[in-house]
Amino acid sequence: MSIAPITRSVEQYVVGVDYGTLSGRAVVVRVSDGAELGSATLDYPHAVMDTVLAATGAALPPEWALQVPSDYVDVLKSAVPAAVKNAGIDPTDVIGIATDFTASTPLPVLRDGTPLSELPEFADRPHAYVKLWKHHAAQGQADRINQLATSRDESWLPRYGGFISSEWEFAKGLQLLEEDPELYHRMDHWVEAADWIVWQLSGTYVRNACTAGYKGILQDGAYPSTDFLGALNPDFASFADDKVAHEIGQLGDAAGTLTAEAAAWTGLPEGIAVAVGNVDAHVTAPAAQAVEPGQMVAIMGTSTCHVMNSDVLAEVPGMCGVVDGGIISGLYGYEAGQSGVGDIFAWYVKNQVPARYHEVAEAAGLSIHEHLTELVRDQPVGAHGLVALDWHNGNRSVLVDTNLSGVVFGTTLTTRAEEIYRALFEATAFGARRIVETFNASGVPVTEFIVAGGLLKNSFLMQVYSDILRLPISTIASEQGPALGSAIHAAVAAGAYEDVRAAGRAMGKLNRAVYVPNSAAADAYDALYAEYTLLHDYFGQGGNDVMHRLKTIKREARA
Amino acid sequence: MSIAPITRSVEQYVVGVDYGTLSGRAVVVRVSDGAELGSATLDYPHAVMDTVLAATGAALPPEWALQVPSDYVDVLKSAVPAAVKNAGIDPTDVIGIATDFTASTPLPVLRDGTPLSELPEFADRPHAYVKLWKHHAAQGQADRINQLATSRDESWLPRYGGFISSEWEFAKGLQLLEEDPELYHRMDHWVEAADWIVWQLSGTYVRNACTAGYKGILQDGAYPSTDFLGALNPDFASFADDKVAHEIGQLGDAAGTLTAEAAAWTGLPEGIAVAVGNVDAHVTAPAAQAVEPGQMVAIMGTSTCHVMNSDVLAEVPGMCGVVDGGIISGLYGYEAGQSGVGDIFAWYVKNQVPARYHEVAEAAGLSIHEHLTELVRDQPVGAHGLVALDWHNGNRSVLVDTNLSGVVFGTTLTTRAEEIYRALFEATAFGARRIVETFNASGVPVTEFIVAGGLLKNSFLMQVYSDILRLPISTIASEQGPALGSAIHAAVAAGAYEDVRAAGRAMGKLNRAVYVPNSAAADAYDALYAEYTLLHDYFGQGGNDVMHRLKTIKREARA
Repeated sequence: MSIAPITRSVEQYVVGVDYGTLSGRAVVVRVSDGAELGSATLDYPHAVMDTVLAATGAALPPEWALQVPSDYVDVLKSAVPAAVKNAGIDPTDVIGIATDFTASTPLPVLRDGTPLSELPEFADRPHAYVKLWKHHAAQGQADRINQLATSRDESWLPRYGGFISSEWEFAKGLQLLEEDPELYHRMDHWVEAADWIVWQLSGTYVRNACTAGYKGILQDGAYPSTDFLGALNPDFASFADDKVAHEIGQLGDAAGTLTAEAAAWTGLPEGIAVAVGNVDAHVTAPAAQAVEPGQMVAIMGTSTCHVMNSDVLAEVPGMCGVVDGGIISGLYGYEAGQSGVGDIFAWYVKNQVPARYHEVAEAAGLSIHEHLTELVRDQPVGAHGLVALDWHNGNRSVLVDTNLSGVVFGTTLTTRAEEIYRALFEATAFGARRIVETFNASGVPVTEFIVAGGLLKNSFLMQVYSDILRLPISTIASEQGPALGSAIHAAVAAGAYEDVRAAGRAMGKLNRAVYVPNSAAADAYDALYAEYTLLHDYFGQGGNDVMHRLKTIKREARA
Repeated sequence: MSIAPITRSVEQYVVGVDYGTLSGRAVVVRVSDGAELGSATLDYPHAVMDTVLAATGAALPPEWALQVPSDYVDVLKSAVPAAVKNAGIDPTDVIGIATDFTASTPLPVLRDGTPLSELPEFADRPHAYVKLWKHHAAQGQADRINQLATSRDESWLPRYGGFISSEWEFAKGLQLLEEDPELYHRMDHWVEAADWIVWQLSGTYVRNACTAGYKGILQDGAYPSTDFLGALNPDFASFADDKVAHEIGQLGDAAGTLTAEAAAWTGLPEGIAVAVGNVDAHVTAPAAQAVEPGQMVAIMGTSTCHVMNSDVLAEVPGMCGVVDGGIISGLYGYEAGQSGVGDIFAWYVKNQVPARYHEVAEAAGLSIHEHLTELVRDQPVGAHGLVALDWHNGNRSVLVDTNLSGVVFGTTLTTRAEEIYRALFEATAFGARRIVETFNASGVPVTEFIVAGGLLKNSFLMQVYSDILRLPISTIASEQGPALGSAIHAAVAAGAYEDVRAAGRAMGKLNRAVYVPNSAAADAYDALYAEYTLLHDYFGQGGNDVMHRLKTIKREARA
């Protein structure tokens, strides 16, 4: 009989918290190897307010999308302790916490960080709330920013593919000024939710380099000039200086340490490292070991964000931005995006798929998405006779135009619901191909396509992407990539690794070339992609601005 | 105490039988005033075969649509006696019977009228069956007919708006020759179902002037020449002479009298008048008292057929045809059409409307169409931000192109199912406006728009048409317009009236100007119609032939 020696663990842990569009997810990760030991999710109590303001029930105009900041704090109070409990670890072994967020998702706050929506006198004012990334009602302001910047040949414009998005800080800030000036003047900071949540954790307001660069037009250390901003609107001249500019924190650095209050919320030790904020897409790159040039990571969920490091600085038409150190210190971080992907599929199954499909799916124990996929996965390419434009939520790259809309061409009286579903799959893949081709043509070659996000679970969708892109598809080997990426940043902020590149190699997880192109299918898809391209350019580049006019007609009819 | 004198009725009756796409309906009508006393319907046992051949279960290629001729006889055996019974009349008081049919709906028969599909050796051959009007697989043949006729400047081509449809006798006959020559050579007559059913009733084969003119290219007494047909295909040279040409019967004349066999089927007296065959749309004009120039009758059902009399002969681009006496003797009969209307709405609710709408409709005791209509009828014009092309079943007028397909522009992630439904309503009204405008511009003015057919029950749809057309909408005051129109022809064939014009005035029924345009709505619709026109011309007139190419891709992928 022998007695085994008892070894006591000296492992250390970090917590990553990923703030998505509809929920926040906390994951507990082992510092040594990135093992994910426990997680928990909280659906935001107020979800997304895109039709009515919850506080009053008042209707919101088209294209609005708001959130409630206390929902984010609820994630800290609920999901973080639940994840620690699920992990079965001793919370005193946690050495750091980091967060990532949707972006650009700004809110107006007082000097102490109090959101204006939490002041009773402003609770009924839509502009007091968080403007979620997919709030698209600042398109008019974005158009003016782009026209003026183009006419003045502003040096920062090419860094954003030639277009500033209506989703970003300046367009949304200008909308706030022009539609609710009282609130605009009352706010002290126009703060990204990514930084606001770090502020709640650490008591310190630090602007992260990622959102400041990609969403806040900070390039080479400067924001758009007072002169430029004043030409948009005289009252906007000091926007950057007064409302936006603030200390910048580099990704992987600590913004501060956990306050006593936040320690009480989370159950984590007071004083542990709180990393500088980050963006859900960008933080995923190291989680997928994508820390080298040419590795494009597509985070495919409700929308798709493409992030890629490169050692060259180039102007890629229609990209979302290039930021020095925007993903990994020492490399240029590129971002592109598709503003609707999973959201389009979800809209479709909710609004355009009849009962019988749901019934058969339920009887077979499949999700409706799985069932529709099964019905069409063996249909030959093109046999549905359809080609769609994936613009139901506008087009981020390469057209940067939220006033576009979705279309399906080729429907006949024998077209079936699952065929349109597949055409929407293909349309998003065509959109991705257009982005990859644009990068390649701009001297920033894409050498590997890595998918993260919830959609990688659909193996048929992944094969469609591989065939249409004619690239192998690698997939992140974690179901919670952004939270893992945050955890990697927490480990670096806590000093466990020298930098994010090293931590990504140790803690990130990737399955390489899980899908490879089928050349016959790829050839067949080329014919459909040629149609997509023709329609894309015609409706997206001024051949017929019917989509813009329809949105105008819609706005005016509803006014 | 007094005893009232007993008066014995000396009323006479006629039976009209309307053969639609999915069913046949018999109506018993009083000769003196057109009162409809009883009716009965039989759904065709084989309905429409558009995916598989019922006899074998073998798959049919795309665009096929077949029927089984014995289904038509079943209507005589079942619906006619049931209608007489429902009417509570003595069948010996019936003086005539008349029929109307979809067109062009031809079938190959032997010299005695036996359909080739009823020969056991051909029962498994798709080409042996009736090719329903919406069989669109002869588009390649139609294209060749049009190219050759255009290049040779054939005099008959402008009588059909410059295009011979793939739905008509010659395109379908050429397809039969080229795809199943054995059957082609075996058939003695290529006969319209409209005339075949009269043949079954009377034992006499007479080609009615209406289908011979509109669908059989009979103009000024002649068919396309042997020379022309031989240039299409040498074996087709004698098609008109050998398979098509036959004695012509004028509308309202008697083709013969009821045979003993048909009397046994129907329970009607042997020897009563059997009218020359007719087409469902054209026969409806006198039923709606539309016997004067400028009165356009739109028979709105699965598709819409527009018929109008005029005292001028003109060339209207994209009309289906102009035939001297094609509707009413002594006037030029014009026909135009929209190949998908109710069919599009039906396809949409079956394939693209989720369960919750059906559930709410059922709970409220409404049809799904009524429920969707209620949901959007009060939405301001354009508030859905959508514009659709109503080409899910191709475009008959004014583009004459079955290879077009349906599209909805403007869909976003907040678009609701009922909004698309309304956009489809509007699209069909825009299509109708295009037709009316084309007639007006060609010197054949439309002065009144009369709606017949099942869709007139939707008052919102009717108002949409009135607003978009900027015309008052009158509606037929009968729920069985074609059958009433047939009954009118039966009365004339039996000698009860001098001609169809007189019978129409006495027996037809119309409610005038039930809907009038709302000028504010009409103005708002003009903006959407401008978008419709731009897209219509771009996709329909060669700006981008993507719809054609998608159908080719589909055919090849399925081959």
